[in-house]
Amino acid sequence: MTPEELYAKATENLELIRSERPRVHVLTNFVAMNVSANVLLAAGAIPSMTIDETVIEEFVGSARSLVVNLGQLDPWRKISVPMAIAVANKLGRPWLLDPVKVDRSGRRLAFATLLMDLRPTVLRCNRGEVGTLEGAAGLVIAETGEVDHVTDGTRRIDIHNGSPLMARITAMGCALSALNGAFLAVDPDPFTATASALLVFAIAGDIAAGKAGGPGTFQPHLIDAIYHLDGPTIARRARIT
Amino acid sequence: MTPEELYAKATENLELIRSERPRVHVLTNFVAMNVSANVLLAAGAIPSMTIDETVIEEFVGSARSLVVNLGQLDPWRKISVPMAIAVANKLGRPWLLDPVKVDRSGRRLAFATLLMDLRPTVLRCNRGEVGTLEGAAGLVIAETGEVDHVTDGTRRIDIHNGSPLMARITAMGCALSALNGAFLAVDPDPFTATASALLVFAIAGDIAAGKAGGPGTFQPHLIDAIYHLDGPTIARRARIT
Amino acid sequence: MTPEELYAKATENLELIRSERPRVHVLTNFVAMNVSANVLLAAGAIPSMTIDETVIEEFVGSARSLVVNLGQLDPWRKISVPMAIAVANKLGRPWLLDPVKVDRSGRRLAFATLLMDLRPTVLRCNRGEVGTLEGAAGLVIAETGEVDHVTDGTRRIDIHNGSPLMARITAMGCALSALNGAFLAVDPDPFTATASALLVFAIAGDIAAGKAGGPGTFQPHLIDAIYHLDGPTIARRARIT
Repeated sequence: MTPEELYAKATENLELIRSERPRVHVLTNFVAMNVSANVLLAAGAIPSMTIDETVIEEFVGSARSLVVNLGQLDPWRKISVPMAIAVANKLGRPWLLDPVKVDRSGRRLAFATLLMDLRPTVLRCNRGEVGTLEGAAGLVIAETGEVDHVTDGTRRIDIHNGSPLMARITAMGCALSALNGAFLAVDPDPFTATASALLVFAIAGDIAAGKAGGPGTFQPHLIDAIYHLDGPTIARRARIT
Repeated sequence: MTPEELYAKATENLELIRSERPRVHVLTNFVAMNVSANVLLAAGAIPSMTIDETVIEEFVGSARSLVVNLGQLDPWRKISVPMAIAVANKLGRPWLLDPVKVDRSGRRLAFATLLMDLRPTVLRCNRGEVGTLEGAAGLVIAETGEVDHVTDGTRRIDIHNGSPLMARITAMGCALSALNGAFLAVDPDPFTATASALLVFAIAGDIAAGKAGGPGTFQPHLIDAIYHLDGPTIARRARIT
Repeated sequence: MTPEELYAKATENLELIRSERPRVHVLTNFVAMNVSANVLLAAGAIPSMTIDETVIEEFVGSARSLVVNLGQLDPWRKISVPMAIAVANKLGRPWLLDPVKVDRSGRRLAFATLLMDLRPTVLRCNRGEVGTLEGAAGLVIAETGEVDHVTDGTRRIDIHNGSPLMARITAMGCALSALNGAFLAVDPDPFTATASALLVFAIAGDIAAGKAGGPGTFQPHLIDAIYHLDGPTIARRARIT
């Protein structure tokens, strides 16, 4: 995939999200909920986030993709997460796993390892987290950090956009995972969906960093930037290898 | 009720909230908690939000109104919601029901239907949600959307203020429901309380849209606008039929 | 402790947080989570916030301090809070108790009283809350309000910085408690740690108030101000008696 092909795909996917307004169900931690919902809405998607296991089948069943984030698991998430994944798998809907901080807890890692057996479409995490997980062969893996790497085992893209401020604001990785869910909803190729989601988020981060006075004002500008992002801006700002 | 009467009532209610600083207990979803609390504080009210069923009687009992939002119900909310309503009803305090996304889940709708039997003072929702609920006759109904409608069966007001950006930010309806709770706390007529809450929120949205660069910067400006809103601005900006 | 000694200590502690990037585990209410994490990250610390009792030992065990906030206790917090405190006490890590609104609920007060027996390093609350709690003798007590008071029974500092806007935004006290946790992580004297945390937060509030148009825009500016705060600014702006 050439850089030019990725600009075009990112633009196309963003336009599809804006026109089709896909529903994305996101099971995420409490810290990340508000900003994840706002990132999805800014992009054009319709988020839902209930953890209630009695309605999870209805919500996941009427969504086009699922995002599972393992931060702050309470007992209800531990029930609703595998139920939600089962629904997505049964319906053939893509789902993304964000194994937050599995490198800080053996028990959380054990839970994440069980979920890996359910075959997520995409694994989105940082280097420390991906290093602890087995069974990722064949998945699309998005490893974010100073440089973001996306691979499906054969194709690979490195994205150099993004701001160091993003590491000084909570839940940026979680919000990116949520956004990735919207791209999975409209793009049947999870590699190009994921690469374009990461590119859009990182470029929005560049734009926000240019307007923000620090990490506090960065977040509102990031959401504005996602809302306004267009193809020419993506092509002009993308730094891909 | 003439438009002029509504401007005057909205101004009077806002001044009462600022001077009396009523306590409002809000049971709402995780996404909406922070922004709902900030909207209430900006208006002058004192929010509390615990879902702990062992203290809910103390918190609702010392609040002047109750707001119940059905997003993201976990088992503790399912216990604390009916307990909180029972306390409000026993003490004769007004309470508002926001049946979020009952049009997406039959089970959530069934729970909301049970709560309708407990006779909320106000039902605040969107068109899809209100269409699924029975038993609303005789209640004040606030149906928000491009145009907001408030009726108590005999009186009716349509509010044309507000910004399309409000549909691109999460929990705006939930935050409005919370604000409505503050107006119910100071105004014994739930129709005028609700109409004035919706007018204040929609005008604040107009003001924020004029200052924001997108949905991210909209939210902080919305809260600033609620904090500063005064009678002359309400009278000048209101678009009511 | 002279004012000059406190400026120097606040500056030194802030630099230690930025260079050592201590992990702080925060058990707090849902409203406060996002802003508390962002305040810690802006200062340079690394927050974690899980309430999952099965991993709490791993998270608290790998953190340098613990913050316990009693807002919105669900049953999982009631389990994880004493477990987290037991881990901190066993490892000799400092921990802070923020007994939110114990003056509104006898049951919450009873829970807080049990925790007081576990001997927090610091008690951080407002006047109404501290008045209801027994057993605070010998602790560092930080009582915040129009003027902030910090004492350990022998030493005492009063801080006159801060903005009235801080009372019109939710979770400001909770976010301060979280920040205090970072200062406890790097400063072995809990009195100077706490006094310097309160000074930094209040001065950041002064700076934010000068830039904000109201409580909505205040919060992003507060986080920016924490991120940028330096020794000369602290010395120039501090108002201490």
